[in-house]
Amino acid sequence: MPERLAQRLAAPLVDRLAIVGIGLIGSSIARAVRQRGLARHIAIADHDPAAADTARRLGLGDAVGTDAAAAARAADVVILCVPVGACGAVAAAIASALKPGAIVSDVGSVKASVVTQVAPHLPLGVHFVPAHPVAGTENSGPEAGFAGLFLNRWCILTPPEGANPEAVAALRALWEGMGANVEVMTAEHHDLVLAITSHLPHLIAYNIVGTAADLETVTRSEVIKFSAGGFRDFTRIAASDPTMWRDVFLHNKDAVLEMIGRFNEDLAALARAIRWSDGDALFELFTRTRAIRRGIIDLGQETAEPDFGRRHAEAEPE
Amino acid sequence: MPERLAQRLAAPLVDRLAIVGIGLIGSSIARAVRQRGLARHIAIADHDPAAADTARRLGLGDAVGTDAAAAARAADVVILCVPVGACGAVAAAIASALKPGAIVSDVGSVKASVVTQVAPHLPLGVHFVPAHPVAGTENSGPEAGFAGLFLNRWCILTPPEGANPEAVAALRALWEGMGANVEVMTAEHHDLVLAITSHLPHLIAYNIVGTAADLETVTRSEVIKFSAGGFRDFTRIAASDPTMWRDVFLHNKDAVLEMIGRFNEDLAALARAIRWSDGDALFELFTRTRAIRRGIIDLGQETAEPDFGRRHAEAEPE
Repeated sequence: MPERLAQRLAAPLVDRLAIVGIGLIGSSIARAVRQRGLARHIAIADHDPAAADTARRLGLGDAVGTDAAAAARAADVVILCVPVGACGAVAAAIASALKPGAIVSDVGSVKASVVTQVAPHLPLGVHFVPAHPVAGTENSGPEAGFAGLFLNRWCILTPPEGANPEAVAALRALWEGMGANVEVMTAEHHDLVLAITSHLPHLIAYNIVGTAADLETVTRSEVIKFSAGGFRDFTRIAASDPTMWRDVFLHNKDAVLEMIGRFNEDLAALARAIRWSDGDALFELFTRTRAIRRGIIDLGQETAEPDFGRRHAEAEPE
Repeated sequence: MPERLAQRLAAPLVDRLAIVGIGLIGSSIARAVRQRGLARHIAIADHDPAAADTARRLGLGDAVGTDAAAAARAADVVILCVPVGACGAVAAAIASALKPGAIVSDVGSVKASVVTQVAPHLPLGVHFVPAHPVAGTENSGPEAGFAGLFLNRWCILTPPEGANPEAVAALRALWEGMGANVEVMTAEHHDLVLAITSHLPHLIAYNIVGTAADLETVTRSEVIKFSAGGFRDFTRIAASDPTMWRDVFLHNKDAVLEMIGRFNEDLAALARAIRWSDGDALFELFTRTRAIRRGIIDLGQETAEPDFGRRHAEAEPE
């Protein structure tokens, strides 16, 4: 694919790309952009010197440092890859370094709050196109990234009203260049959609792992031993980056609380069905939910292999 | 391994094994026992003629039919691999066919209820050793099974007080022969442990998938498209067999309702932390839960690969 893309494109899409924050997402962007020749020059900044050192050692960019403004200076596209709660401060730090016509974007899992935080800092003539690639793993840091992370995943753009169409088109092309499908919606709708497809699942996973850890009648070693009964599935997303997820919940409060409310109502109904031995109600729900997974697999958003295709070191071939 | 085992064992552990119910678990037992030479003769019965036909076509046993009593006749070990709610009826059906000294076991995810259902039907001189292999996938039916399903997974035995020690030892050897680790506990403790490590996770998964399916502000196609943000993880166990899981909840009511209560209390505290922007409380929980996953990986009950080691057909090598 890189070869074919390179043939198709006379020149890189972006002359100078800046990535601020070189964790899982930032480092995956750096790798994908490099692999597919989407930018001529990649500048990377991370306020953590250790992360910057790792990025330098891995050769993720042409210039790597700890100063966000230095990376953003002269950049055509700047992508903020920091926790949602840090976006405002980073925008303030880079504002005066931005060149006219530059495109500023981000990768935050919450969009309305990012707009509120970032927009006021940006000088006139700079284009702001918020984005959210719906992709990730439970791992964090510059070494966790990989170029294929965005392949066939969706990236949602939430350009504010009146956003420059060419800036939106340029960012769309960049994400499509990394293998993503691009969809455009309002920041408010994004925050509602992600509240159910991502934020509530993470909260529920964190919660059930916490509940299990706190039991006094079942030991922690029993929870770990017998986790293959289902529990271990939840521990994956409950191992995600704590700072990132703290910020997501604090910055998408209303939508998350609304989804918790609905989840609670439904769980109360299920608990009642169990208490009153309403097997038909249970069977009806358990049958209905199968169709959703089928849809996800059919859309290529999930593997069709049983058990996520988990491999176990101990398993011998049959 | 089959070769080494065959050398170690002068003769198969079991002369005649009967498996009643040839779904995911029953067919995995048939395959594991056959592969490792653990029984001289395997008789299979399934009340569904289509399942029996499939088992016959796959060559899973030496004799395959629809009559549980016929399969159980002359068997040294009979394993009931049917939904928990069907155990009593199957025990009644096979009781008069059982030979003196036979061992009856099961694979149900609930144990106290199985004891209550099965024990009264068994004639004197027959040994009852309930068992639960904590292993599975979201798939069902005779074709879903595989010989390696129990490798390095735990199998819990819950022999009633006064159970025959040789019968317990024989069943332990059979499960260890299939590659499982065996643990012994009371039926009551089992039901509490599994309520948190398996039953509650399944209920929560079914519930969140149902909540998402019922939203009117977010379309079902949006839920499917953007499921890679976390939601899709939950759809796997929410695709498990509806009959099996209906029975689990109806037969482990008290422990499941107790765990729902604890889960709800913890979720209420989390919702409150979000509402009042208590970022420290969120961060503390999100950090604590990481250790549990680490423990599960260290014990070999989970892959260390990110994202469960999911493979995507679309992903190209870097």
